[in-house]
Amino acid sequence: MSRTESPAAARAKFRAGLVTPTAGWCDGYTQANLIAVPKDIAWDFLLFAQRNPQPCPVLDVLEAGSVSGPLLDGDIRTDIPRYRVYVDGEVAEEPTDVRGWWRDDLVGFLIGCSFTFERALGAAGVPVRHVEQGVNVPMYRTSVRCRPTGAISGPMVVSMRPVPKDLVETAVRVTAAYPAVHGAPVHVGDPRDLGIRDLDSPDYGDPVRIEPGDVPVFWGCGVTPQAAVVESKPALAIAHAPGHMLITDAEDEDYRIRDV
Amino acid sequence: MSRTESPAAARAKFRAGLVTPTAGWCDGYTQANLIAVPKDIAWDFLLFAQRNPQPCPVLDVLEAGSVSGPLLDGDIRTDIPRYRVYVDGEVAEEPTDVRGWWRDDLVGFLIGCSFTFERALGAAGVPVRHVEQGVNVPMYRTSVRCRPTGAISGPMVVSMRPVPKDLVETAVRVTAAYPAVHGAPVHVGDPRDLGIRDLDSPDYGDPVRIEPGDVPVFWGCGVTPQAAVVESKPALAIAHAPGHMLITDAEDEDYRIRDV
Repeated sequence: MSRTESPAAARAKFRAGLVTPTAGWCDGYTQANLIAVPKDIAWDFLLFAQRNPQPCPVLDVLEAGSVSGPLLDGDIRTDIPRYRVYVDGEVAEEPTDVRGWWRDDLVGFLIGCSFTFERALGAAGVPVRHVEQGVNVPMYRTSVRCRPTGAISGPMVVSMRPVPKDLVETAVRVTAAYPAVHGAPVHVGDPRDLGIRDLDSPDYGDPVRIEPGDVPVFWGCGVTPQAAVVESKPALAIAHAPGHMLITDAEDEDYRIRDV
Repeated sequence: MSRTESPAAARAKFRAGLVTPTAGWCDGYTQANLIAVPKDIAWDFLLFAQRNPQPCPVLDVLEAGSVSGPLLDGDIRTDIPRYRVYVDGEVAEEPTDVRGWWRDDLVGFLIGCSFTFERALGAAGVPVRHVEQGVNVPMYRTSVRCRPTGAISGPMVVSMRPVPKDLVETAVRVTAAYPAVHGAPVHVGDPRDLGIRDLDSPDYGDPVRIEPGDVPVFWGCGVTPQAAVVESKPALAIAHAPGHMLITDAEDEDYRIRDV
């Protein structure tokens, strides 16, 4: 990882073929989840996101066919380290470039990512275990159902960070100030309350070691649209590979509620 | 006004024909702006709202043709004190019941309203002048352009509250905690910075008396979609009359960012 890289330099590396999870990259710059779907179901996707703002906070929606937007001077088809392409709800390919899959009727959604508040957590003295351990953040499908739309339904996906017990309150306070990138945790403590059986077997990302005295803390996760794709089976959907995010030119601070 | 009324009781009064601005009604319950447009331009409207979250924070989107939703046990066609019906961007009627205008392809958007944070302002010691004076809040079209979509464009509309100079910081802090209902002010001070020439001639609502030592403070306003209707001229749009809101069953506190 490279904390001091500029977003443009990081995107250039990924465009050139570097494959890596992006947690800890480009200190101070906002990372985003990508989900692109055909225009004919874009309404349902936008509505699904609007109805489930904690896992699916929308940072931007690109025009149909557009591969860039105000949040980045780049190309969403090449500038992410790795992609997941879904056909009829199943993973068809995990390429590092999706220009061959692109269609002019695809609408790209950029969804907030909790990596955005990790620097603020660190600055407040809350250790970020998966970054310390050099692994991808663990993510889990839960038994919590998102509020559906006519055509789109699915479970909430969460990311998990182990937090020292006496810093949980700090972690809640710090992340609540970032509602556009998932905000406060959706759950603290027993993973079984979310229907998660085994923290060591995440559905996406890597397991993370829980240090003595740590409590698992769960945040809404921008992989939730991908779980909805699996369940709702649109003809085509193009997403980032979980943890391999789009690094934007927007700054983390742009998404912090100030003066509160 | 009736501070202690339940939302259901207030809606019943409006359904029965009572016409009044709703500022100060139903303490603790969230009020909402209504804009309903045909399904074929609903995508553009939702995108317009998503791109302009400060004036157009979306609280809920109803299914096409639906006249109710999870935020209210009622009927959006009858439960608002007064409506504005726009045909091709012009006000066609200002009825107290829009059942005669309703179509099964209309999609209703409920947009956050700044009345929601007025109780919190009062609790923090910030006087709410238009409620004190028993008038509707003044609202103004500004020279600030919203970020457009393909089919929808328009200016930002703001509401204005005069705030004693030494309480402006408090007003900013209190309202910033309510991003879903316009959040922090978009401007403090000189109205000319927003292209507003005369505070005594609001475009919507009533003029409010500015007390000695007060500074004008401006918040994004949910009448913004109506200004976009005037400019973008959809075939039909049904909205509340400015200041005459839909009182929902949701609580103001549901929209406050906690633990920040």
